[in-house]
Amino acid sequence: MQTIISSKTKTVVIGPGRPFTIIGERINPTGRKLLAAEMAAGNYERVQSDALAQVAAGAHILDVNAGIPMVDEPAVLEETIRLVQSITDVPICIDSSIVEALKRGLEAYEGKALVNSVTGEEERLEAVLPLVKKHNAAVIGISNDESGIADDPAERFAVAKKIVERALDHGIPKEDVIIDPLVMPIGAKQDAGRAVFKIIQRVTEELGCNTVCGASNVSFGLPNRKGINMTFVPMLIAAGMTAAITNPLEPEIKQAILAADALMGNDENCTAWIQANRKGVRKRERRRRQPSA
Amino acid sequence: MQTIISSKTKTVVIGPGRPFTIIGERINPTGRKLLAAEMAAGNYERVQSDALAQVAAGAHILDVNAGIPMVDEPAVLEETIRLVQSITDVPICIDSSIVEALKRGLEAYEGKALVNSVTGEEERLEAVLPLVKKHNAAVIGISNDESGIADDPAERFAVAKKIVERALDHGIPKEDVIIDPLVMPIGAKQDAGRAVFKIIQRVTEELGCNTVCGASNVSFGLPNRKGINMTFVPMLIAAGMTAAITNPLEPEIKQAILAADALMGNDENCTAWIQANRKGVRKRERRRRQPSA
Repeated sequence: MQTIISSKTKTVVIGPGRPFTIIGERINPTGRKLLAAEMAAGNYERVQSDALAQVAAGAHILDVNAGIPMVDEPAVLEETIRLVQSITDVPICIDSSIVEALKRGLEAYEGKALVNSVTGEEERLEAVLPLVKKHNAAVIGISNDESGIADDPAERFAVAKKIVERALDHGIPKEDVIIDPLVMPIGAKQDAGRAVFKIIQRVTEELGCNTVCGASNVSFGLPNRKGINMTFVPMLIAAGMTAAITNPLEPEIKQAILAADALMGNDENCTAWIQANRKGVRKRERRRRQPSA
Repeated sequence: MQTIISSKTKTVVIGPGRPFTIIGERINPTGRKLLAAEMAAGNYERVQSDALAQVAAGAHILDVNAGIPMVDEPAVLEETIRLVQSITDVPICIDSSIVEALKRGLEAYEGKALVNSVTGEEERLEAVLPLVKKHNAAVIGISNDESGIADDPAERFAVAKKIVERALDHGIPKEDVIIDPLVMPIGAKQDAGRAVFKIIQRVTEELGCNTVCGASNVSFGLPNRKGINMTFVPMLIAAGMTAAITNPLEPEIKQAILAADALMGNDENCTAWIQANRKGVRKRERRRRQPSA
């Protein structure tokens, strides 16, 4: 299975048997007050520097979200996408919970975008999938529906299956649906990690779809979240996950992904690992990391 | 599946659904010149301190090996086992490639030992399994045979199956056979990691046996071996592995195992994780680590 995403000039292939796809998560004002205020005021300097830094750190795709309260989100999302496309060549994951914003983003985007996201909710399926089809995009399908997020992995798998089938009804092939099993915090629900491994395995084997997630939610409320997150991502990769929305500027996460690529046999001759771990390189990586804003 | 190992006073249960079993690897003179010289001269001070430090760092079982060139290995192994049993209460994994040493070790040991190891080689099977049966011990079965170590995971699985069947012929139940899939360096063989994940999955699902390995061999020849090893162990755990022969004094490995336990849902309420990550605890852990000798 191969999901192909592209910008005007660059193609990214997501799938097993190749290096894990990193979707940079930083261009998202949620929980970043300073960035939100700047974007609301039309100041995109931090968006630019975040875009360039993430690409330099190895992001293959950039997630772009403009969800700022009291702001014309469709307009800001469109502007952000145009800007990011003007300064980098990596494809974009257009991220919004507002259908109109996804529409404007898709209209502005040059290439084959990844849309983040559709859920298994009836209204959402019928609003987002036609847009995805019209623009020949790919879409992230999140495994929750009207009844919320099921604890039972079998129920969440059923929602994933429904999304893939509905996409097919709309003429979107299953390669263009990437399933997000929805990561819940293990501090609140002890089986949350295992449930995700199970869903990923089933989606990979039974639906033949790629999978993605935002991994860091798993450690919410626990101490040393980085220690949990950097362990979780390789376990997800071992279970079959092929992409994650994450922060490549965190050296521990980046290292875990590179090591997992080598361990899955997806880093030819361990070249990327050796390259990243030559003397001095890791030190520079650490220095590059910047505080959140 | 549950493999039960014990000392005179303490029982360890290896199996899925419970915290990962750490078998401390330090009491092994292979590659430790100073320790080898000391043990050969009858000086067991470092054996004692290594035993106590590993138990304090969370080892559930201690591997004991006395493979020193030009030394009466059976006698030294016996003495080392008696000593370790006199100062700690954790069960022991009796480790030798010499059958006479395993025999002496088993005779000296009080409790139900884990024998490390038998292979799929005819001569070895018929020499080691009767000993294991006689002493009601458990045994690690390594998936190589007369033809060496197969690259094909299916062949290595077949060797594992043969060991389990032969053990049954000798009256040893499959719970008392723990399969070691044999970890080869990914730097030499790109698929080595993936092969091990595959064998672990099949042994777990098809044979219903626990699995163990010495994980660190995977990174042989590569830079930043720790970065590879601390990523590999959680991936092995996600694939179903239930124990490893490793060094609990390495804080990165220890942290990865604790995080993986929490992520597998095997650390109730994340208690062990929270305990290990309270302020100051990690610092002390790091300070405890000592240089190799």
